[in-house]
Amino acid sequence: MPAMNAFYAQSGGVTAVINVTACGVIETARKHPGKIANVYAGRNGIIGALTEDMIDTSKESAATIAALMHTPGGAFGSARYKLRSIAENRAEYERLIEIFRAHNIGYFFYNGGNDSMDTVLKVSQFSKQMGYPVTCLGIPKTVDNDLPVTDNCPGFGSVAKYIAVSTQEAGLDVLSMAKTSTKVFILEVMGRHAGWIAAAGGLAGKNLGDAPHIILFPEIPFRKRAFLKRVRECVTQYDFCVIVVSEGARFANGRFLAEAGTRDAFGHSQLGGVAPVLANMVRESLGYKFHFAIADYLQRSARHIASDVDVKQAYAVGKAAVQYALQGKTAVMPIIKRLSDKPYRWKIECAALERIANKEKMLPRRFITQDGFGITQAARRYLQPLIMGENYPPYINGLPKIVALKNKPVKQRIGSKFVI
Amino acid sequence: MPAMNAFYAQSGGVTAVINVTACGVIETARKHPGKIANVYAGRNGIIGALTEDMIDTSKESAATIAALMHTPGGAFGSARYKLRSIAENRAEYERLIEIFRAHNIGYFFYNGGNDSMDTVLKVSQFSKQMGYPVTCLGIPKTVDNDLPVTDNCPGFGSVAKYIAVSTQEAGLDVLSMAKTSTKVFILEVMGRHAGWIAAAGGLAGKNLGDAPHIILFPEIPFRKRAFLKRVRECVTQYDFCVIVVSEGARFANGRFLAEAGTRDAFGHSQLGGVAPVLANMVRESLGYKFHFAIADYLQRSARHIASDVDVKQAYAVGKAAVQYALQGKTAVMPIIKRLSDKPYRWKIECAALERIANKEKMLPRRFITQDGFGITQAARRYLQPLIMGENYPPYINGLPKIVALKNKPVKQRIGSKFVI
Repeated sequence: MPAMNAFYAQSGGVTAVINVTACGVIETARKHPGKIANVYAGRNGIIGALTEDMIDTSKESAATIAALMHTPGGAFGSARYKLRSIAENRAEYERLIEIFRAHNIGYFFYNGGNDSMDTVLKVSQFSKQMGYPVTCLGIPKTVDNDLPVTDNCPGFGSVAKYIAVSTQEAGLDVLSMAKTSTKVFILEVMGRHAGWIAAAGGLAGKNLGDAPHIILFPEIPFRKRAFLKRVRECVTQYDFCVIVVSEGARFANGRFLAEAGTRDAFGHSQLGGVAPVLANMVRESLGYKFHFAIADYLQRSARHIASDVDVKQAYAVGKAAVQYALQGKTAVMPIIKRLSDKPYRWKIECAALERIANKEKMLPRRFITQDGFGITQAARRYLQPLIMGENYPPYINGLPKIVALKNKPVKQRIGSKFVI
Repeated sequence: MPAMNAFYAQSGGVTAVINVTACGVIETARKHPGKIANVYAGRNGIIGALTEDMIDTSKESAATIAALMHTPGGAFGSARYKLRSIAENRAEYERLIEIFRAHNIGYFFYNGGNDSMDTVLKVSQFSKQMGYPVTCLGIPKTVDNDLPVTDNCPGFGSVAKYIAVSTQEAGLDVLSMAKTSTKVFILEVMGRHAGWIAAAGGLAGKNLGDAPHIILFPEIPFRKRAFLKRVRECVTQYDFCVIVVSEGARFANGRFLAEAGTRDAFGHSQLGGVAPVLANMVRESLGYKFHFAIADYLQRSARHIASDVDVKQAYAVGKAAVQYALQGKTAVMPIIKRLSDKPYRWKIECAALERIANKEKMLPRRFITQDGFGITQAARRYLQPLIMGENYPPYINGLPKIVALKNKPVKQRIGSKFVI
C-alpha cells in the first residue's frame, strides 16, 4: 500500500503539553515515511478539515517540531467545536470524508477530551459506511483529568503541579502576614464538573496546619454553615485559612456558587467566579481580611512549571497513537496504565473508544475526606506521581523560548466554501 | 568594643525573595562574630520587638539559613504595622529602645518599603536622643518597585518575571482558541499606585500582535471609550486581545475601577477586583467571550519562577547592609545602582534614608507609549535585565523544598506586657 497522509487536530481547551503530543505524533510519523507521507494539521482543530484549511507540517524543520516540546498553547489552533450526530448533520461527516479523500488522508488523529473521542468514533464508523475507511485514533488531552479508562490524562499533571506549587507558595505568604493582614486566602481553580484539579491543591499540605486548610469540590454539595465554621476554626487554630475551590463548586440543589451572583450597579448579573462569592461570605459572617486569586488560563498554560511525568506521558500517547495506527488499529485511544505508585511506573496500552467517548470520570468519594473538605491518603497516592519532576523550557532574555511555526497551508483541492 | 546583637525584621507584604535578603544578613553577620554576636529576628516583624517576641537565629544551622535562599514567604513573619510619629506615640519608640538595650542590640536591620524606611530613620534619630545610639539600616524590599534612589527593588524582578511569563503563556493559550472560544483575556496584577508590575507584562510581547495588546496603568486615567475601541481593533486585527491591568487602574476622577463596583443580590457592594469590571464592560459593549485571571498573592510568592538577577540582588542588599553597619554607617539603605543596560551590570551603593523614606517612584511617562496602552523601548531597556536568569528552588516529591525554621524565642528580659 502506498503511503497515505495523516490528519492531526487539537480539540477543546489547550494544555501546557498538548504540543508535546503533537510533537510525538509528527516525530513518530516522520520515522515511517513508507506508510505516512505527510502529517497535515487542522488549523483551529477540526474546523481546519471542514473548511479545507490544513497546515502542512512537513514544511517544518525537525528542530521546529522538537521545539513544540516546550511551547504551550495549541500550535495549529484548537477549537471548541463538536460535530453533531450523523443523523443531525450528515453533511458535516460527508464533508470530512470528502476532504480526507481529496488529500489522500488515511489516518485521523484527534487530540482532545470526551467529546472529541465521540467524534473520532463517529468518523471511524462513518468513513467505513462511505467506503473510504480511515484509521481513526483518539489521543487523550484534558486538564480536567475526567477521561475514563486511562489512569490519568496528559495535561492534568502539569496543571496539578502548578496548583500544588502555587498553593504552597501563597500559603507561606499568607501565613507570614496573618498576624496583621490577610487571614483568609482563596484560590479558584478549574474543574467545572470534576474536582481533580482542586484535589491537586491538597498536595501542598503535608503537616497539620499547612495550607490548604479547605478544599471545595464540585462533587461535594457546598454547605455554607459548615464551611464558615471550618474557616473560623482554622483562623483560630492556625492564624490563617487557605481555601482551594473548584470553579464548579455548587450548592446541594446543583446551582453553581459562581452564579450566586454578583450584580453590577445596574443590577445586571456579573460573572465574577466563585472566589469572590466565598470571600464575601467570609467578610459578612466572620469579618476576616481576605484575598483571592483566580488562576484561570494561567494554570493550564503554565509550561514553565510543567510536570516531567506529564511531559513524558503527553509525548508517549502521541507516539503510541501513530504506532497503533500503523498496526492497523482504529477507533482506539492510547491510555496510561499505572503499574505501581511507588516507585511510580506506567505504560501505554490501547483501549476501544467505545469505552471512553462521552463518559466523565469524577473524583471518587474515597479520595475526599469524610468531612468533604480535604483529600485522603488514597488521593495523595494517586496524585503524587503525576506532579513529579520538573521539565523546564529553555529561556531567552528571561522568558521561555517558544517556537513559531511557519504553518504553511496545504493547497486546497476542493475549495468550495463550507460555512461552519 | 564587645560584640553586640543585631535585630532584623521583615516589614509589609512579603516577596518571593525577602528570605534571600534575610539569608544575606544572617550569613554576613555570622562572618563577623567579633562585632555581631547574634542576629535576633522579630516574630511578625517590628511587632516582635515591641512585644519582646524575638527569634534567636543563632539556633539555626548554616544549612537551614542557606535554605532561606529558596523559601518564599517571610520566614519569621512580617507585619503591616507602621510606627506613628514620635510626637504621636513616643511610648512605642521608648519601648523599642528599652528592648534593644535589654538585649544588647546595637544594630537594627529593617527590611521593607517606603514606610519602613521612615521607621528606620525615626528609630535612628530617637535612639540617639535616648542616649542609646543604634546603628540603623534600611534594606529595600517591595514588589511594587516604588522606592526612589535605588534603580529597582528586590522582590520586583521576580514578580515581573512571573507576570511576563504568565502573560506570554496565557497569550498563546488564548490565541490558539480564539476562533471558537475566548477572544478577550484580562490579567489583573498588583500595583495599587505604581504601574511597574503591569509594565512588566509588556515584556511578553515582542512582535506586532503578540500579547499583551493593552496594558492599563494607575498612572494613566482610564478612558472607557478608547479602551473598548482598542479591544475591538485588536480582536478584528489579531483575533484576540490580551489585557494586563494594574489593580490600581483608575478613572480620571481618581476613583479605582475596582470600586466601580459589583454588588451582591442584596445590593451590598462587593470587592471583586478590576478584572471583572473590565470584563463586564467588554461583554456589555462588544459581546466578546472573555476570561480573566487575578494573580494576587501567586505573583509575589512565586519563588519557583524567581528571576536570578533578583535573587542575587536580594542577597546583595542584605549582605551590604551588614557591611555598611560594620563600617559605622547608620540611617542609610543599600541601593542598587545600574552601571549598564546591555550587558546588564550593577553594583550596590549606600544612600541616606532621608532621600528615600516616604517617597514613591511612579512609572515615568516616557516608559508608557503615547496612547497610554503599552510600554516604550525605554521601559523595555529598564525592565528586561531585571527578569533575566532562572533561579530554581530544589524540589522534593514534585514540590519546591522549603525550610521550616526552629524559630526558638530569645528569652524575655523585660516581660511586661505591651499591647500593640
